[in-house]
Amino acid sequence: MEESQKRPRFKKKSGLTIDVNALVNGVLAKERTSLAKAITLIESNSSEHQSLSQTMLKQLLPHTGKSVRIGITGVPGAGKSTFIESFGTMLCDMGHRVAVLAVDPSSTMTGGSILGDKTRMEKLVRHPRAFVRPSPSGGTLGGVHRKTRESIAACEAAGYDVILVETVGVGQSEVIVRGMVDFFMLLVLTGAGDELQGMKKGIMELADAIIVNKADGGNIKPAQKTKSEYNQILHFLQPATKGWTTRAYTCSALHYTGIEEIWDIIDSFMENTKKTGIFMERRHSQAKEWLYSSIHDRLAQEFFQDERIKKALPSILEQVTKEERTVSSALEHLFDVYNKNS
Amino acid sequence: MEESQKRPRFKKKSGLTIDVNALVNGVLAKERTSLAKAITLIESNSSEHQSLSQTMLKQLLPHTGKSVRIGITGVPGAGKSTFIESFGTMLCDMGHRVAVLAVDPSSTMTGGSILGDKTRMEKLVRHPRAFVRPSPSGGTLGGVHRKTRESIAACEAAGYDVILVETVGVGQSEVIVRGMVDFFMLLVLTGAGDELQGMKKGIMELADAIIVNKADGGNIKPAQKTKSEYNQILHFLQPATKGWTTRAYTCSALHYTGIEEIWDIIDSFMENTKKTGIFMERRHSQAKEWLYSSIHDRLAQEFFQDERIKKALPSILEQVTKEERTVSSALEHLFDVYNKNS
Repeated sequence: MEESQKRPRFKKKSGLTIDVNALVNGVLAKERTSLAKAITLIESNSSEHQSLSQTMLKQLLPHTGKSVRIGITGVPGAGKSTFIESFGTMLCDMGHRVAVLAVDPSSTMTGGSILGDKTRMEKLVRHPRAFVRPSPSGGTLGGVHRKTRESIAACEAAGYDVILVETVGVGQSEVIVRGMVDFFMLLVLTGAGDELQGMKKGIMELADAIIVNKADGGNIKPAQKTKSEYNQILHFLQPATKGWTTRAYTCSALHYTGIEEIWDIIDSFMENTKKTGIFMERRHSQAKEWLYSSIHDRLAQEFFQDERIKKALPSILEQVTKEERTVSSALEHLFDVYNKNS
Repeated sequence: MEESQKRPRFKKKSGLTIDVNALVNGVLAKERTSLAKAITLIESNSSEHQSLSQTMLKQLLPHTGKSVRIGITGVPGAGKSTFIESFGTMLCDMGHRVAVLAVDPSSTMTGGSILGDKTRMEKLVRHPRAFVRPSPSGGTLGGVHRKTRESIAACEAAGYDVILVETVGVGQSEVIVRGMVDFFMLLVLTGAGDELQGMKKGIMELADAIIVNKADGGNIKPAQKTKSEYNQILHFLQPATKGWTTRAYTCSALHYTGIEEIWDIIDSFMENTKKTGIFMERRHSQAKEWLYSSIHDRLAQEFFQDERIKKALPSILEQVTKEERTVSSALEHLFDVYNKNS
């Protein structure tokens, strides 16, 4: 089992052919090794693998979409790993099949940091109904985005019915993860005031639940106080999901208290949003927005990687910054360069 | 004087030639009629006028940048017009030259709604040191954006040292206006809780000051209470400007109370941000961001207006929304279509 959690590698060049059909059958047969290989294929930056990956995903697509997709964020130290360990293990023990993925923009630099330390999730990693995958490394944020979305699809095709997507509370990753999950939760610690100061703008407004973690021992009272402070602030914010009131809750991932209640909340959220149609509405608009943002990314990529633009941009940018040239004139010049004979 | 506030029109076709040099000289000589004509040229959507407008702006640019650019937003009914009337008149009486512009995304539909009712600013409109311009009509939001930025430049070249940019508290307009001003204020009414419910997400986090207006008569006490409620919430938000603490204040635009204090706040903001370098840093990054967002807008415009894309997109979008096709595969298909022989 330990073996199957290792990330398999393909040969760089097509020394060995990848049997896409066998991979698809393996994933649909819920073989963890096949799922791991499928995700490695999704994560590969080689164009040959990209093309095989698309063939594979096309076959997996009819079997996707049937999970609860849950995003989990929080500042470093909020206890995300411990929470996922407890919450995931509980769900597995209840009979669910739980996949854990991660989006970590910093990993594009460092080569994968979240979930890298799997020793924090020892129980979950060894659970037969769990699949834990460290964040993909390499490539742009847009690339990480695509890889995570497609990995979710692969996990769903492999029969995982709860997908947990972890992200760190920095940069653009929360907005990206909010755009791919049904339910989004924010893990916080006691001391709302202090903590909020260091929190990214607008992050509370993305959350369907705020969980004050580490509510145990002498920390129970401060955690309760923090909970009501967050509830007070939430009163002034628009809810992340239409028709759903975001509230703060306490739990102790370490002592397994309040964890079950969180699943009840998600359950009632799912029931509520499916009844009102908000659930499917969100999934449809998520797919649509993803396509549009991919188009925008691709257009920008082609533009800014154009050799002529690379050459022209720095001096134009300096002129605009120093207010020696209007933006309109800079724009005309750049697009004259870009659209010439291309 | 009334005459000079009317929006002059150019002939559609070049029946009469526009003398750009005369226009530039008129603007630099602080002639209000020339400024009005210059802005009409900026606002024209004809490509001939666009080109003349760029020639004109190139000559005006060395004379721009020396004003305080102030953004003013607030929900309808917050008393923006009355506030601008009182605040602007006070500044004119102090010796300043005040230009009032507006960004109204809805005006792209309705043909200009903000400031349309100039009777609310009767005094200011007639003041010899004021220039009031209704929001440009027609065109895209990106177009309105460009027109407003270039109109600010024209007003500065005409010697206006305070530029007030009004916007309604809906849609994307606040973010756009925040991106073109030095100081941004949010006008609100009493009853923070109720009002915040209807307020756009994140708008408070753009503001350098929150002004509780209509603090007069029996409303003084509720206004004070609202002020402290806002201050409490502000405590939990990140400041809009590094090194500056956003606070709530009360005023009565109608009774001219608290208005002077607001100018003092802006004054101390300017002194503070100029000393720390934040002021120039923001102006430079605003110019840079404007160029980048214009590039993105233009790329998207060219893509989505391409006849082949218009034809291919609807069915692709439906497949993606129904999860019958991956976003990656949709993207490849669309870019194959777009980049073929173009």
